[in-house]
Amino acid sequence: MRNLDAHEDYKVDERQLHRDLTGLVGSFPAPREAYPAPYGVVGFGEAWWPAELAHLWIPRLMTEGGTQFVLQGGLDLGAAAGAVAAAEASGARVVRVGFGDAVDVPVEPHPLSPYRYLRFLQEATGEAEAGTRVDRALEALAAGLAPEVPTEDNPAKFFAWNLIERIPVWVVSERYRGLAAALQQTFARIAGSLSIAPPPGSLEFFITALEARHEQGDPLAAVVVGEDERTRLAVEILETRVDTVLELPEPPAEGLIPEMMAAWYFVAWASYYLAILYGRNPADAEVLARLREEA
Amino acid sequence: MRNLDAHEDYKVDERQLHRDLTGLVGSFPAPREAYPAPYGVVGFGEAWWPAELAHLWIPRLMTEGGTQFVLQGGLDLGAAAGAVAAAEASGARVVRVGFGDAVDVPVEPHPLSPYRYLRFLQEATGEAEAGTRVDRALEALAAGLAPEVPTEDNPAKFFAWNLIERIPVWVVSERYRGLAAALQQTFARIAGSLSIAPPPGSLEFFITALEARHEQGDPLAAVVVGEDERTRLAVEILETRVDTVLELPEPPAEGLIPEMMAAWYFVAWASYYLAILYGRNPADAEVLARLREEA
Repeated sequence: MRNLDAHEDYKVDERQLHRDLTGLVGSFPAPREAYPAPYGVVGFGEAWWPAELAHLWIPRLMTEGGTQFVLQGGLDLGAAAGAVAAAEASGARVVRVGFGDAVDVPVEPHPLSPYRYLRFLQEATGEAEAGTRVDRALEALAAGLAPEVPTEDNPAKFFAWNLIERIPVWVVSERYRGLAAALQQTFARIAGSLSIAPPPGSLEFFITALEARHEQGDPLAAVVVGEDERTRLAVEILETRVDTVLELPEPPAEGLIPEMMAAWYFVAWASYYLAILYGRNPADAEVLARLREEA
Repeated sequence: MRNLDAHEDYKVDERQLHRDLTGLVGSFPAPREAYPAPYGVVGFGEAWWPAELAHLWIPRLMTEGGTQFVLQGGLDLGAAAGAVAAAEASGARVVRVGFGDAVDVPVEPHPLSPYRYLRFLQEATGEAEAGTRVDRALEALAAGLAPEVPTEDNPAKFFAWNLIERIPVWVVSERYRGLAAALQQTFARIAGSLSIAPPPGSLEFFITALEARHEQGDPLAAVVVGEDERTRLAVEILETRVDTVLELPEPPAEGLIPEMMAAWYFVAWASYYLAILYGRNPADAEVLARLREEA
């Protein structure tokens, strides 16, 4: 079995993703100009989640005379270009962020790009203060999760050990809309592994989905993010049905978006260590680049 | 092994769910009065999906002086009551649909209730014509999917046989927003089994999630609903990674909501037969009733 505290076992990390994780804070494109309000934002491909986060303060489409941000996260099969054309026809100024055609603000395809899209949008639309809180939360976490921190002191390594050969089920507080799917996506891209995000009626799902075949619960690990009455009930339902229940450490964050980003960042690190344990390159670049050429 | 064409194997269906399936069309509460426009609708618990479907023509919150429908689908931990209070404070007329506190239009908790909420809303908000198209699509399907139609002529029985001991992954056309999660929920409630709905960046998920452990694909069945470039690419990715690929028969439906409802109805029937094959009561009433008392 691999050892997360042995330097040589990190050789599979050919693209040094751990450096991107350690140095994530600040690695976003700073706006070089002022964008006129009101704002709208739509996101495609890997940028779907930062767009959803931004909808907490920006609508999808601006009403008139402002700036429409189009997050081009790839693999959109023409949808981003359609959004650009529609916004231009409505008289908005269009700012294309991401990669691919005619980008104004480049963000490379990357499993950690949600942070970069989000932070750009916060700076560009007068939400820099909330952005600083995101950065503070991630910085507070980063020091304790890096590869040089040994397993006994490193909760992300502990998580990775507990997720080996298991399938996470994301049990996420009601407050964190969209987060379960974002964790499912990041866990796939970095750990290369399957996980389950429940549908909106999550309690009904948890209580019924393992009724016909109890053995379906054997490989599952419930991963609990955030505390409220719904997660408490979910744990009560799941603890007799799944193999193990793991709780994410409470994030060192203030505010909804900082809390969600802290949880996402922790899961990105845990996914990274799981890839190392599986002996898999945690960067997903090649398989996705091939798909992007095809699509 | 059980036999889907043998009467005695249906004994586990103690609550005669097949009758509710066969007789679903028309089984909704007809509006008894005219509700003033504009409309708003929010949905909780098992009613989350009909609310999402209704958002194709009704916003979440009405702007002023109209009717706010609150779909009380249970297990909402006080959220529906909060929505009622907020709507009343804004001067809207509030109409509570579903079950629980102070309901105006009763809809019993039931795995097939999404149809009933949806059809009520269509009739109550001037969308009766679209509702008729939903009913025509479901009626066209019903005749061919009932228990008396033998396995060789019954595509829902065929599906159930192909899903035994497998975990469906819902591969759903871009047009059908929310449908993958609705199928995940219905499959849990009727078949009592686990399935996987992908996150919004579904192609990236399909291509990366099975990279670290190829054996995670062994129990999976990709179930394809609707045809577009995205589902075509998804099938190309998944066919070498999962055990089998199944395509839902093309629905006898015109229009977005009728198509989605037809797919949902087909999956409800397939889930029903899978429950029979597993020897499980396809009605989920008891385990959910216990949970509702607790919550």
